[in-house]
Amino acid sequence: MRHVFEPSVFYNNFGPYEPVLYLQDGDTLVTPSLDARGWDAKGIQRAARGNPLVGPFYIEGAEPGDTLQVDIKRVWPNRDHGWAKTVVAGHVVVPEHAQSLPEVRVGTWAVDIEKGTATLMEPETVLGQITLDLEPMLGCLGVAPMGHQAISSATSAQHGGNMDYRGYKSGMTTYFPVFEPGALLFTGDGHATQGDGEIVGTGIEISMDIELTVHVIKDKTIRWPRGEDADYIWAAGNDRPLDGALQHATSELMAWMRSDYGLDAEAASILLGQCVDYDLGNIFDPAYTMVCKMAKRFLPERCS
Amino acid sequence: MRHVFEPSVFYNNFGPYEPVLYLQDGDTLVTPSLDARGWDAKGIQRAARGNPLVGPFYIEGAEPGDTLQVDIKRVWPNRDHGWAKTVVAGHVVVPEHAQSLPEVRVGTWAVDIEKGTATLMEPETVLGQITLDLEPMLGCLGVAPMGHQAISSATSAQHGGNMDYRGYKSGMTTYFPVFEPGALLFTGDGHATQGDGEIVGTGIEISMDIELTVHVIKDKTIRWPRGEDADYIWAAGNDRPLDGALQHATSELMAWMRSDYGLDAEAASILLGQCVDYDLGNIFDPAYTMVCKMAKRFLPERCS
Amino acid sequence: MRHVFEPSVFYNNFGPYEPVLYLQDGDTLVTPSLDARGWDAKGIQRAARGNPLVGPFYIEGAEPGDTLQVDIKRVWPNRDHGWAKTVVAGHVVVPEHAQSLPEVRVGTWAVDIEKGTATLMEPETVLGQITLDLEPMLGCLGVAPMGHQAISSATSAQHGGNMDYRGYKSGMTTYFPVFEPGALLFTGDGHATQGDGEIVGTGIEISMDIELTVHVIKDKTIRWPRGEDADYIWAAGNDRPLDGALQHATSELMAWMRSDYGLDAEAASILLGQCVDYDLGNIFDPAYTMVCKMAKRFLPERCS
Amino acid sequence: MRHVFEPSVFYNNFGPYEPVLYLQDGDTLVTPSLDARGWDAKGIQRAARGNPLVGPFYIEGAEPGDTLQVDIKRVWPNRDHGWAKTVVAGHVVVPEHAQSLPEVRVGTWAVDIEKGTATLMEPETVLGQITLDLEPMLGCLGVAPMGHQAISSATSAQHGGNMDYRGYKSGMTTYFPVFEPGALLFTGDGHATQGDGEIVGTGIEISMDIELTVHVIKDKTIRWPRGEDADYIWAAGNDRPLDGALQHATSELMAWMRSDYGLDAEAASILLGQCVDYDLGNIFDPAYTMVCKMAKRFLPERCS
Repeated sequence: MRHVFEPSVFYNNFGPYEPVLYLQDGDTLVTPSLDARGWDAKGIQRAARGNPLVGPFYIEGAEPGDTLQVDIKRVWPNRDHGWAKTVVAGHVVVPEHAQSLPEVRVGTWAVDIEKGTATLMEPETVLGQITLDLEPMLGCLGVAPMGHQAISSATSAQHGGNMDYRGYKSGMTTYFPVFEPGALLFTGDGHATQGDGEIVGTGIEISMDIELTVHVIKDKTIRWPRGEDADYIWAAGNDRPLDGALQHATSELMAWMRSDYGLDAEAASILLGQCVDYDLGNIFDPAYTMVCKMAKRFLPERCS
Repeated sequence: MRHVFEPSVFYNNFGPYEPVLYLQDGDTLVTPSLDARGWDAKGIQRAARGNPLVGPFYIEGAEPGDTLQVDIKRVWPNRDHGWAKTVVAGHVVVPEHAQSLPEVRVGTWAVDIEKGTATLMEPETVLGQITLDLEPMLGCLGVAPMGHQAISSATSAQHGGNMDYRGYKSGMTTYFPVFEPGALLFTGDGHATQGDGEIVGTGIEISMDIELTVHVIKDKTIRWPRGEDADYIWAAGNDRPLDGALQHATSELMAWMRSDYGLDAEAASILLGQCVDYDLGNIFDPAYTMVCKMAKRFLPERCS
Repeated sequence: MRHVFEPSVFYNNFGPYEPVLYLQDGDTLVTPSLDARGWDAKGIQRAARGNPLVGPFYIEGAEPGDTLQVDIKRVWPNRDHGWAKTVVAGHVVVPEHAQSLPEVRVGTWAVDIEKGTATLMEPETVLGQITLDLEPMLGCLGVAPMGHQAISSATSAQHGGNMDYRGYKSGMTTYFPVFEPGALLFTGDGHATQGDGEIVGTGIEISMDIELTVHVIKDKTIRWPRGEDADYIWAAGNDRPLDGALQHATSELMAWMRSDYGLDAEAASILLGQCVDYDLGNIFDPAYTMVCKMAKRFLPERCS
Repeated sequence: MRHVFEPSVFYNNFGPYEPVLYLQDGDTLVTPSLDARGWDAKGIQRAARGNPLVGPFYIEGAEPGDTLQVDIKRVWPNRDHGWAKTVVAGHVVVPEHAQSLPEVRVGTWAVDIEKGTATLMEPETVLGQITLDLEPMLGCLGVAPMGHQAISSATSAQHGGNMDYRGYKSGMTTYFPVFEPGALLFTGDGHATQGDGEIVGTGIEISMDIELTVHVIKDKTIRWPRGEDADYIWAAGNDRPLDGALQHATSELMAWMRSDYGLDAEAASILLGQCVDYDLGNIFDPAYTMVCKMAKRFLPERCS
């Protein structure tokens, strides 16, 4: 079933809140999202700044210990402008370099959702009106956290959250561990495009039209967000420093390769050693995100 | 001029040692290298294990404060087998996962240098005789370090070294800061292929045929290794944790974008924020390596 | 006023929950706590394991932006035995060392609350029945977190939490930022004693008798937990890696030295540079804790 | 035998250089040192800035795999003034705090070597002429590094080096692994006093009179610097981030407790868990230093 949803409640935490809609296994959710400051498609502020989320969506049948599959059918901006910060974060450069950074401003990008482009309007720099192709993605995607916690949409953990990973785009299938009955899915913080790491602290922030299909995978327990597309399987870890995020991501992908592809730890290691790819999600938020990927062409047949 | 060199001396440090050959600006060096344990193309051990290096090569005219450009014309294995460790390092997974890892073995890969493939021969695993395409690269490339130090070829710093970055392959142009007269170039530790991060502690280790062309760029001072190909410019940082490596790489690329492309810190930030890519070099060696990249298609004309 | 409280509700998160008791500025709270697995003074399990907390206590007059002062009048075990894990965490040793660690067991310590000693009863080791002096402390102390979050009592942040800092003992005065009306104070996870860092993942875990006096400091905003005793002022930071925790602690102590002691950034730096002390709180929990301390004898008169 | 040495050669690296003096097992070395900028007791610049070292001293009988014991008999300033930087390093505070730090200056301290005090002369601040008790220590102490490396006296590793640990003071006994024949001992970079972490990048920098007694411990191999005094045994680790330094230090102290005190890994863990202390050496230099300590009163009899 396809649910066209119009959100009116927005949380700034991922938490065990009252569901805004109940979905069945296999249902599709169509919803707009607000930008990171709470502005909608019409340029009206609808919620407090700081990644206001749509949700939680209750998925019938999802129980703690299950896995929630979320197919990102479509993520696309629904208005003609986005905004972005203009200066790299002090902690992504060396301290002496940080001390010479200019003041952070908020720039404006004109977004052409037909052509799929974003054009820098402000500030005026030697870049002029540089135009980039859109690669729309969801900065926030996840479920209610472990142990009935309510965790800010500024950060991420095992439940997903504000991972700011470029992979959360149209066509990606993602998986989250279920910690609460109904899983309690949230999303928000759309970016028209973003560089690796979200190193200025924003992508091109914009409200989105989002279409997601949900499935409950019973009796399959995962520990960290996972995903796949036609070419890759991957796992994400969220932690500080990056090394910690990478440890979680690598462990989780190895676990997947072992449980579903029949590889023991040595075979998985041999393949990872010569073929692994890593993506940097974010290095801006309180927890950083690293993604560990394996190309499907190297893997044996999936056995489960 | 083209020098066909046959090495007989091998150092396990990058340091201010007696040059083995003098090159002119623009010369091309053709040399074999040993594998990480000191074995050559014929399967004879020629030096002590631990990344024995060929070099140092003295480049006439290079003075401290200059930059050494090294064009990697060709890196290709010169024998029919390589070896690789079989288990991911304990520090790339979470500690509880590390405790269940099997014992590290040394596997063998048959290398077909005509077809450009590597085939797993040992150990026997469910992977069978999996075959990978070669992506030959240099694990070690760099110059004599700052301050007359002699630094192990197991690690890396501002002079380059054991960066284990997949980008050091045929067709890449690289740059190193010059700290000693003549720069004193070294290379070694070839990998027939390698995954991101060198997370098992090796690529497919093999002896190589290497062809490098050197140029001295006078009065241009850089702080960290840089490189470029047709599509990207990049800078590398070597440090622990990964965050520190990323800080150096980002700062160095911003410096490059400012000095050579006419961008101020804000314009460089805007571009990096929405368009930067990061590669993980290694997360195995004492210093980890992150590479910060900018696609040339986004950059203004180079002005210097 | 002195409130002798008998808890019946226990949360495993610091969060904006219904208060269990209302206190006035200046009131004293006397309460028992459970041990980290939920057992009370009589050896009865009263709550789920994982640092069940007593609280939240609502302090009248405390508003977001104020500071809550908590004087730890007394922390002392209230039963005759505690327990502790027996093996250092895998992440406090190097990975190759971690792989040779034995299986974790739970040991037992006999606690003499009159004499103030703990004696190892199990396991049997060459240490025999080693006896330690008690230094009772609170592993968990803090308030409801920022932004209506509910954060596990396994970890810590700006609101305090599971800091496992040996300084939270009888005689210490502590300060927390107020994020919710009433501050919503929680405590628990008592340790009869503990080494720096809580590197086996526990102190000697035991139920406690706790006596705290609370004061509201209006219109004084702090960012991180602070404290003082006769000799020192200090600030704590909670983050990963330790470097991040140290950055927060140092920044917070400098802020305090500037606002209350009339020092500018240079004077504060000069004093810190030659006189600062750091304590390691924990390096076991999801956020690590570092404490930055300045001896009062070096400071000018407090001016505010 | 007692050697009163007058240095004339100064290296800025720890490396396998020509010895300046040969010592026998049990000999005592008396030598002055220069300050971190190369100035001597008379205020004359004798060497290039950047921690110029006295040494290397060759200790007869020391072979790779042995341990060098260095008893610090006396470290005391030999002139009436020292200098110190005035601003905390950008990386010991949070980035937004770093951006507001003032410019670094070099302050002056009058040192009374009779009374044992240092008095701030410049800059003028609200601290006035604050006077501190001297706690003189050696910023640099160590031997030639592993693998014939030459490593800058700005940093540290397994050979010791620029650890900037307050424990390197009169009365301390220290141990270093031997990597080169004769061990090749170096020292320098004296501080009249210093706070934990050397967070302004200097202690009160001053030339010293140093008296060291050396012993060779044959056939005892250690991996990292160790030490002891009447109350404690300790081990140091040097790495980034602090977590890495702590891992090395903890592993090394556990190894010591196992080999010399008859404890197995569980017994050592139990003791460390409840009784360990950690000191922060430096968090300024390229490698940070953490020290893991165990009070002797908790340890069984030493069995080797």
